[in-house]
Amino acid sequence: MLRINKTTDLVAIGRACIDLNANEIHRPMEQTMTFTKYVGGSPANIAIGLARLGMNVGFIGKLANDQMGRFIHQYFVEEGIDTKGIVTDHTGAVTGLAFTEIISPSECSILMYRDNVADLLLNSSEVNEELIAQSKWLLVSGTALAKSPSREAVFVALDYAKKYDTKVVFDLDYRPYTWESDRETAVYYNLVAEKCHLIIGTREEFDMMEALLQESHEDEVTAQKWFDYSADVVIIKHGGKGSIAYSKEGEKVQSGIYETAVLKTFGAGDSYASAFLYQYLQGGSLEDSMKYGSASASIVISKHSCSDAMPTLEELESKIMQGTYIK
Amino acid sequence: MLRINKTTDLVAIGRACIDLNANEIHRPMEQTMTFTKYVGGSPANIAIGLARLGMNVGFIGKLANDQMGRFIHQYFVEEGIDTKGIVTDHTGAVTGLAFTEIISPSECSILMYRDNVADLLLNSSEVNEELIAQSKWLLVSGTALAKSPSREAVFVALDYAKKYDTKVVFDLDYRPYTWESDRETAVYYNLVAEKCHLIIGTREEFDMMEALLQESHEDEVTAQKWFDYSADVVIIKHGGKGSIAYSKEGEKVQSGIYETAVLKTFGAGDSYASAFLYQYLQGGSLEDSMKYGSASASIVISKHSCSDAMPTLEELESKIMQGTYIK
Amino acid sequence: MLRINKTTDLVAIGRACIDLNANEIHRPMEQTMTFTKYVGGSPANIAIGLARLGMNVGFIGKLANDQMGRFIHQYFVEEGIDTKGIVTDHTGAVTGLAFTEIISPSECSILMYRDNVADLLLNSSEVNEELIAQSKWLLVSGTALAKSPSREAVFVALDYAKKYDTKVVFDLDYRPYTWESDRETAVYYNLVAEKCHLIIGTREEFDMMEALLQESHEDEVTAQKWFDYSADVVIIKHGGKGSIAYSKEGEKVQSGIYETAVLKTFGAGDSYASAFLYQYLQGGSLEDSMKYGSASASIVISKHSCSDAMPTLEELESKIMQGTYIK
Amino acid sequence: MLRINKTTDLVAIGRACIDLNANEIHRPMEQTMTFTKYVGGSPANIAIGLARLGMNVGFIGKLANDQMGRFIHQYFVEEGIDTKGIVTDHTGAVTGLAFTEIISPSECSILMYRDNVADLLLNSSEVNEELIAQSKWLLVSGTALAKSPSREAVFVALDYAKKYDTKVVFDLDYRPYTWESDRETAVYYNLVAEKCHLIIGTREEFDMMEALLQESHEDEVTAQKWFDYSADVVIIKHGGKGSIAYSKEGEKVQSGIYETAVLKTFGAGDSYASAFLYQYLQGGSLEDSMKYGSASASIVISKHSCSDAMPTLEELESKIMQGTYIK
Repeated sequence: MLRINKTTDLVAIGRACIDLNANEIHRPMEQTMTFTKYVGGSPANIAIGLARLGMNVGFIGKLANDQMGRFIHQYFVEEGIDTKGIVTDHTGAVTGLAFTEIISPSECSILMYRDNVADLLLNSSEVNEELIAQSKWLLVSGTALAKSPSREAVFVALDYAKKYDTKVVFDLDYRPYTWESDRETAVYYNLVAEKCHLIIGTREEFDMMEALLQESHEDEVTAQKWFDYSADVVIIKHGGKGSIAYSKEGEKVQSGIYETAVLKTFGAGDSYASAFLYQYLQGGSLEDSMKYGSASASIVISKHSCSDAMPTLEELESKIMQGTYIK
Repeated sequence: MLRINKTTDLVAIGRACIDLNANEIHRPMEQTMTFTKYVGGSPANIAIGLARLGMNVGFIGKLANDQMGRFIHQYFVEEGIDTKGIVTDHTGAVTGLAFTEIISPSECSILMYRDNVADLLLNSSEVNEELIAQSKWLLVSGTALAKSPSREAVFVALDYAKKYDTKVVFDLDYRPYTWESDRETAVYYNLVAEKCHLIIGTREEFDMMEALLQESHEDEVTAQKWFDYSADVVIIKHGGKGSIAYSKEGEKVQSGIYETAVLKTFGAGDSYASAFLYQYLQGGSLEDSMKYGSASASIVISKHSCSDAMPTLEELESKIMQGTYIK
Repeated sequence: MLRINKTTDLVAIGRACIDLNANEIHRPMEQTMTFTKYVGGSPANIAIGLARLGMNVGFIGKLANDQMGRFIHQYFVEEGIDTKGIVTDHTGAVTGLAFTEIISPSECSILMYRDNVADLLLNSSEVNEELIAQSKWLLVSGTALAKSPSREAVFVALDYAKKYDTKVVFDLDYRPYTWESDRETAVYYNLVAEKCHLIIGTREEFDMMEALLQESHEDEVTAQKWFDYSADVVIIKHGGKGSIAYSKEGEKVQSGIYETAVLKTFGAGDSYASAFLYQYLQGGSLEDSMKYGSASASIVISKHSCSDAMPTLEELESKIMQGTYIK
Repeated sequence: MLRINKTTDLVAIGRACIDLNANEIHRPMEQTMTFTKYVGGSPANIAIGLARLGMNVGFIGKLANDQMGRFIHQYFVEEGIDTKGIVTDHTGAVTGLAFTEIISPSECSILMYRDNVADLLLNSSEVNEELIAQSKWLLVSGTALAKSPSREAVFVALDYAKKYDTKVVFDLDYRPYTWESDRETAVYYNLVAEKCHLIIGTREEFDMMEALLQESHEDEVTAQKWFDYSADVVIIKHGGKGSIAYSKEGEKVQSGIYETAVLKTFGAGDSYASAFLYQYLQGGSLEDSMKYGSASASIVISKHSCSDAMPTLEELESKIMQGTYIK
């Protein structure tokens, strides 16, 4: 195992896309006439969230050779994200799109454009070895496993992580529309999860992974399965009921939520993950890190975008100080 | 040949898509933050243009089963277009998108999303025979030939047109990004053009068709070739230099243009075609019909959208009366 | 239309494949242990049959870059067929295979290998214009229409035929396994048939073409439809009941059959077509040409192969003189 | 981990195909006129070899629904192989073919038909869990990883093996023609090898796996890499120079060869693997097991087929007793 100077806190691998958020909300999208453009995609959002909080962050991914791709690249540069791991597609692939529809806080939906997207064309030979070598953590987003060659690129990134002693966080981020079947998804999710140190997902995502071998659907059994491989921490999200984090050392921590005026639910998971990681990567306790995650989520779901709404450290700590944490 | 009551003036077959036009213009799209949604796609625009002028118009095509598809359908209904020829996709296909970038009147470009689009999935068994039977004219847009099964649907539509003595106008509308090669395009464009009575295209589009057999690139030779098949009128567009129309009877008419303040060039061709057809289908002379076309184009290129900007008869005739026609 | 010296009697376009005929017959193929290799494929068989009878024949097609492709090429050379229209694939495509199973004369079946075959990769730019120019007739086999780019290559070949006044015979040769659907097949078969002078097919093949527009299934109506386009002669085969030929001039001729000891039915159509064309292209009457076709078929179905069994002129005329013709 | 009664010695997963061996040899295949049909495919050959020696063997794979598929199934039944893990394709896929060309013992080549083959369509839900549960060993052939869904089926088979404490032997068996790239191959080979107890391959195959991370190409380093995962034994084949086996306990054994009259080289690896496994699975030493492997290989390469030529125990032991072993 090679040891090199770890100057980057976390490098994320996966998709960076465009959100087109409805400006006229509280109606079906048929009646929305204008949309605002933001950077989107789970690993991009988490990277932006971490950078906004002051961490050294890098990104590995492929962008379309068009106006949308250049917009994303420029946004990353402005946020201070290391873009040396970003490559540009030259096959005519497009940038993934997510049109959001906000009928009410509880009726949000997304219309996705995921055909021939550049992010899934990242080749295993294009994975920036140096960036992974210099990073303390690698964040893998499950969606990057949906198709070749991006799928193989992730496995090569995991090989580099092992080679350079870079720890891995796996954000399950399962989006059915780009996969052939639940079974295919489960095969690759399990292969990746075996190699990761921190695994975050919803109960439904873990259920999908366990359906392959008809395994148990209990949180403790789920967590223990991954402790038997490489995991130190497993976080299982239960939607409105909050999350539970398990550590290999035997901790079990239930999260709370901060009161807020919800505009939409998009971005809750990504803002949670970024603020949790911010605190946890610096040695924060599970309890404390989950508080950071919840505070960030409560800020983002009250605003129009995901990426643009990611809080600064000042905003986040102000929320933690002044907000009402219900557990 | 069956004769039935021709109650519809024209039925268009092909794509109906979404334009997302930049609101902040005179800059690269990277710097555009919001977009406005309009119905788009050449045959959809022409159908809307004709309906706005008061003609009885129908549409044959396939729409995505999503918010964009439903928006288009509703728009057609509101414009009074007969939608009984519209079918809905159930495979998860999407609506084609065109993001427009307007840097200056002479620097306009389009970012297309044409992967897995519903319009190219129209099946030959879904072509509404009754609607073609009851129409005086069928409008075929070349883009519908780009892929199977839409390609075969067009040939079946042409069979129906022959069966019911429906005349055919062929708008070449060649968009390279959905085709395998120029040669493939030329093969199918030629097969369709052989069966059409009115053919409209740019000099470049006719050149592409003629490259297959290394044929001449002179307008008169081009026109004569199609008169030897089924054509009565061939219109060849020369961009800024205007268009020339040839008739089988030996007419040759050069178009002029109406002075206007150009915002963008998108929609010039579709508005020209719709107003030309409006006049020509009612027995107007080539000279006169081309004037209508030019007037409509001058209106649309001064406005933000294509479809929404299509003039009413009143607006159009006001332009013809008061505008400056330069020839 | 260009006129050049017509030194070739007929050029065939389409597939040239390999037959692997069971040596141990009168049993299911599971129990066959050895197979003998022959050149196969309908247009290849017809070209070989015509060459064997002494005609000047050419072939346009694509062969795999492997031992099977080289075997076919060498066989053509030895038969005196002009191979300047043959191109070699360089994508790793394979030669089509047909394993034959002969349980009894009435229970024959074929196991086909038609995935990734070289013949369907013939590109429209690879069609030898000179060879079509110098040929009196072009033979199109319907199977070549099954996929792009071979489909477009056939349409370009038809363009060349028109340009050089080369007449076209269309052997329908419909094999469902390489097509998407009957409707797709019908679209392209009809487009080709419109441009042909002699059309040969089974009643079932014509039915498939007519199903698209729910047309009549009567032989006379079928024949008349094509006389309204370009056809001079239409031959409709009725299996065991023989064939009927119609001419534009109003002839109607019913074929007979020559008595023979049937080994298998494969090759009956190809040998019939080649000997019919041999006589017809030299100005033979329909009646006479059909006699030649029937005699050749009776020879081939009594032998083990199709291509290798094609008779010489001597054998054929001996059969006609001495055979029993039942009508 | 579940323990159940292990009544089957080994179950192989992967392809079962057809070899068509040239009958007229010592010439290019172009000049071969007849071929003899045998069962082929590496895991099928190994399974047959083990069954012939008296072991309880099972097979998991998918066969085409045609005469070739039924022939293979029947052959397995006759050899006493448990076929309950064999499923039949219903999509029209074909049986893989390998035409062999034997110009001289050192000039042998294979013409493969691997497009749309049934074996690569084995679905992860079709992997027979019971058969893996009751087997002491699972044999994975690398070719089964070449495409989805067979690739995922192998990973599920490995999950079952872990669940039921079934040991795994990985026969690398790398055939470039069915893979996208060496890098893609290396990713999946490495993922599988991590989970296997006995790994057999050529030096070139291990090099391909190691090229991904620019690792060392020395046998001892290669072997040690896999001992750090799950392997107990790694066998690296060096073509004419024989093989070297390494054990986790530190053994290093060089194989010898038995003198024989070589007809062709096909089948050497499969016969070696089957006889090696026969002896090793019964507790034989590496030295002894390699002798069995070499003896079997020397028998098979002197005969016309691979599968049919697999020796009985009597033949094998007779060779070992009487043959000349050169080391």
